[in-house]
Amino acid sequence: MRVPKGFKAAGVQSGIKKEGLDLALIYSEVSCIAVGAFTSNKVKAAPVLYSKKVINRGKAKAIVANSGCANACTGKEGLANAKRMAELTARLLGILPQEVLVASTGVIGERLPIEKVAQALPRAVEELSTDGFLKAAEAIMTTDTVPKICWDTVKVDGEEGVILGIAKGAGMINPNLATMLCFILTDLKIPLPELKQTFKEALGLSFNAITVDGEQSTNDSVFLLANGLKGLVPPHYQAKFKEALVEVMRELAFQIVKDAEGATMVVRVIVGGGKNLKEAKKVAHRVANSLLVKTALFGRDPNWGRIMAALGDSGVPIRENRVSLKINGIPVFEKGIPVPYKEKLQRTFLESKEIYIEIDIGRGNSHFEVLTCDLSCDYVKINSQYTT
Amino acid sequence: MRVPKGFKAAGVQSGIKKEGLDLALIYSEVSCIAVGAFTSNKVKAAPVLYSKKVINRGKAKAIVANSGCANACTGKEGLANAKRMAELTARLLGILPQEVLVASTGVIGERLPIEKVAQALPRAVEELSTDGFLKAAEAIMTTDTVPKICWDTVKVDGEEGVILGIAKGAGMINPNLATMLCFILTDLKIPLPELKQTFKEALGLSFNAITVDGEQSTNDSVFLLANGLKGLVPPHYQAKFKEALVEVMRELAFQIVKDAEGATMVVRVIVGGGKNLKEAKKVAHRVANSLLVKTALFGRDPNWGRIMAALGDSGVPIRENRVSLKINGIPVFEKGIPVPYKEKLQRTFLESKEIYIEIDIGRGNSHFEVLTCDLSCDYVKINSQYTT
Repeated sequence: MRVPKGFKAAGVQSGIKKEGLDLALIYSEVSCIAVGAFTSNKVKAAPVLYSKKVINRGKAKAIVANSGCANACTGKEGLANAKRMAELTARLLGILPQEVLVASTGVIGERLPIEKVAQALPRAVEELSTDGFLKAAEAIMTTDTVPKICWDTVKVDGEEGVILGIAKGAGMINPNLATMLCFILTDLKIPLPELKQTFKEALGLSFNAITVDGEQSTNDSVFLLANGLKGLVPPHYQAKFKEALVEVMRELAFQIVKDAEGATMVVRVIVGGGKNLKEAKKVAHRVANSLLVKTALFGRDPNWGRIMAALGDSGVPIRENRVSLKINGIPVFEKGIPVPYKEKLQRTFLESKEIYIEIDIGRGNSHFEVLTCDLSCDYVKINSQYTT
Repeated sequence: MRVPKGFKAAGVQSGIKKEGLDLALIYSEVSCIAVGAFTSNKVKAAPVLYSKKVINRGKAKAIVANSGCANACTGKEGLANAKRMAELTARLLGILPQEVLVASTGVIGERLPIEKVAQALPRAVEELSTDGFLKAAEAIMTTDTVPKICWDTVKVDGEEGVILGIAKGAGMINPNLATMLCFILTDLKIPLPELKQTFKEALGLSFNAITVDGEQSTNDSVFLLANGLKGLVPPHYQAKFKEALVEVMRELAFQIVKDAEGATMVVRVIVGGGKNLKEAKKVAHRVANSLLVKTALFGRDPNWGRIMAALGDSGVPIRENRVSLKINGIPVFEKGIPVPYKEKLQRTFLESKEIYIEIDIGRGNSHFEVLTCDLSCDYVKINSQYTT
């Protein structure tokens, strides 16, 4: 693993979850430029409300995050607890509370046991190290089965910068983020306005292009901290920087979908022929969120009619006789007419762990790709027994 | 069962499905005023395209419907087959093809075996009787486990009129209809414009207020045939007629939700405090379609935080501190603050087969109720093995 210069991390057990690590801490020796994105859900968790203010100031030095409790729908007490979490962290690190980003994930509507956080935090500070990132990634897991971590390097004028990201996903994943936390750290730096723009574009190509269940959480947060210890990225290198950032974020997005609750396959829904990007996006998301499509995929049932039903319901004025459909490269529907396919298609379904659904809606030249997964009995089992 | 005067029905086996009845026929001795509603999916099945024309003329004498094949995404051949189905029926009944409504339900993208329909139709005509409605209801079933049928009577100036309805539902049920077929027959009559209006209002209170999985089919059709053999409903009785019609349609909608694929409970999502009806509807449908809410309900997990997450994601500018939430009458969240509830709530979840979710969004006086069900492992199982 490559760790960006000046960053340390730790993951400890505070007892909020019944077992396992549940408190993550990330710290940068020097102040970082900070950008972020949050859930667009109108019901926002207390840590989201707190961290928004930090991001608005554009600077941070630390991230503290817990799993096991979302601290959402918890009223004024919840807000006080999120603030307290930042204050406790700041005091131990000798920094200001407004330099600390806070994130939580877990059950909604339950009180954050702040006393457990207070008790465990000194240990987290003590354990901060350049080897702590995997533990930090573990500490933010909920129903994730594996920690999600990924890095890339960017050569800038002889210096090699690093971009490292950790994330958690699992369920409630939908465009405009997800119950998804993602922390990206880099020792490079670009000025705030450019970083904001780059980050926004990278989001559109990564976390805003995946969906597990069409749900959107109260807690989604993505933070990007750039401490610049490897220098400022000059303008003519910014495209390269963006490329690496997109790479890291797309890889984390892929890991999230691959590890989605109960998923047995990764599905790429690739929509072409949109009149504009908005149309292609709409169709891709509608198909990727269709329960009937996802359950058919789980059953390896080449029931492509459900894809047609879903795209017809996308709100885009589609004309059936202009639509073509391929699954793993095999044409099944061409401009309004079904193509005989059965055996080939059934074979690819049984053999593949990755399915490509290519849809051409025949209205223009825009395209968009959404990453999703199938919907299995395990998804239902996991989500029917979450709090009890 | 009460059957409206002049109507007969039959259900026979044509062999489109591997087993069971799959061809339904309904016939009225005299011409009926006909109104209807169809899927708003842009991908419309051939029978929908055909029947729309019939409904546009406002008159019909017969309905022919098959299960086992949707005749959707079947190109020109599909359209020819739908037309042929009407023509065959018309010839046998000695009426005009444009007096025959056609409906299909089943797998999308497969060719309708019209020769099987042709072979079975004479038998259906032969078996037409006033006792045939249950068999007709059976013949339109797909993954339904029970036939859906219901009737009511209306006294009009001493004469007693009858409204009888049959329906199929099971999956792909969402506002703006569903893979839902519903045929309503009455021996009363109101002039076409008034009948259209009454029907539209009844739809909004019945089939457009239920959801199983947020999917919308290519084949949804609701027909209402009024033959008037018991006379014209005078204006001052029309409210009474509407009441009975709503009663029949709501009962069928309830039967559909109760028999939804894999469902183990009926859930009423009752949203109050909307600024207007649109808002209340939006919130009710968003919550009723939330996978995480539905899986929690299946697990009898009182995880009400998911209701909050869903309503925050409805697009309505909700303020958390104005929202209150009750489940089966038990307050769990009051104006932004969680109410301790656990035991009581867990008990009601374990004891009830019907769950009432009451949401007050604190923005006004409009309210709307949506009927839905939980999402079980069986839903996934049923839908992962549909065509194979």
